[in-house]
Amino acid sequence: MGLSIVTYTVRMSRWEPDARERLVRAALDLFDEQGYSATTVTQIAERAGLTKSTFFRHFPDKREVLFAGQDTLCRLLEKGIATSPASATPLEAVARALDAVAGAFTPERRDLGPKMHAAIMASSELQEREALKRVGLATAIASALKERGVLEPTASLAAELGVLALSTASARWFNPANQMDLATLAHHALRELHTASTALR
Amino acid sequence: MGLSIVTYTVRMSRWEPDARERLVRAALDLFDEQGYSATTVTQIAERAGLTKSTFFRHFPDKREVLFAGQDTLCRLLEKGIATSPASATPLEAVARALDAVAGAFTPERRDLGPKMHAAIMASSELQEREALKRVGLATAIASALKERGVLEPTASLAAELGVLALSTASARWFNPANQMDLATLAHHALRELHTASTALR
Repeated sequence: MGLSIVTYTVRMSRWEPDARERLVRAALDLFDEQGYSATTVTQIAERAGLTKSTFFRHFPDKREVLFAGQDTLCRLLEKGIATSPASATPLEAVARALDAVAGAFTPERRDLGPKMHAAIMASSELQEREALKRVGLATAIASALKERGVLEPTASLAAELGVLALSTASARWFNPANQMDLATLAHHALRELHTASTALR
Repeated sequence: MGLSIVTYTVRMSRWEPDARERLVRAALDLFDEQGYSATTVTQIAERAGLTKSTFFRHFPDKREVLFAGQDTLCRLLEKGIATSPASATPLEAVARALDAVAGAFTPERRDLGPKMHAAIMASSELQEREALKRVGLATAIASALKERGVLEPTASLAAELGVLALSTASARWFNPANQMDLATLAHHALRELHTASTALR
């Protein structure tokens, strides 16, 4: 009985709506104001009006605050490819993967994008983590394509085109002047890359 | 006078033939025996029969022992592209870049390659650094192509093809059964990738 009350109390205090997003915004503000390396987890939690232990329920460390969506992104890419029609070419399957990812990019994400980009560009440690993310996404796409019987080097090549298309499309989408949705931009970027690849020689 | 003798003595003690390579081999052996994270700079220096300060004259930390060649690689790629004939297509310029790099891969490097690969695969920290290297090489190629007037997304696409060709060719070159030289393997891999890119859709 006593235990269940304790559990209940802990659960209550753990209920912080939007804690995750508040932590991301607090971290981005602090990285901007005082730099990434000078910022501590304690400061991020304080700025967000949350405890340090709440921080650690959401992120393993301050670096991962900006990269916590990577696993979700990989799963969406894989799912988009796995659920493509059997008749889809490698590039069509990659387009489906980009559609799946685009659906997960909310308006809040669009608002945060440029801040995240600025934070990453200002820190070599974050650039390194970004490079790892890039390789992780390419590996996810290539593996999902291989599952469908796509051979190398086509699988890795299509994966690189997918990652390039996603980064180009995101950069255009983050531009406040842009009016197009992310899926349209991603398809457009993928077509551009395919055209470029046929005209490389 | 006193100062010049001191300087001379220090210079003498700094003269260790092949110190760099001895440190790389010692680090690879220790990473293999006891793992990357359990290995210290002190242990690497000791195993190589050198001092810790000699280690730090060659590498900033234990991680960089396996990636110290990256700057040289980037400069070779850039130079290969910059010195391509004006008439060269983006892909022909990338082929020149791969030639320039292949020339720097000595027989010792071929012998170390599989050990380096095994060490990197066994450590997430080293995989992360490898991802950064990959992005660094692609950036070097893309920048050198842009210098020649190649536009985006062609420059980034040709760069990704170059990096994929180099990693595919190196893996084949490291195979003890292989009889071909690295430049031939790289050209072959680049052709395969170009063929795949025209057949993607």
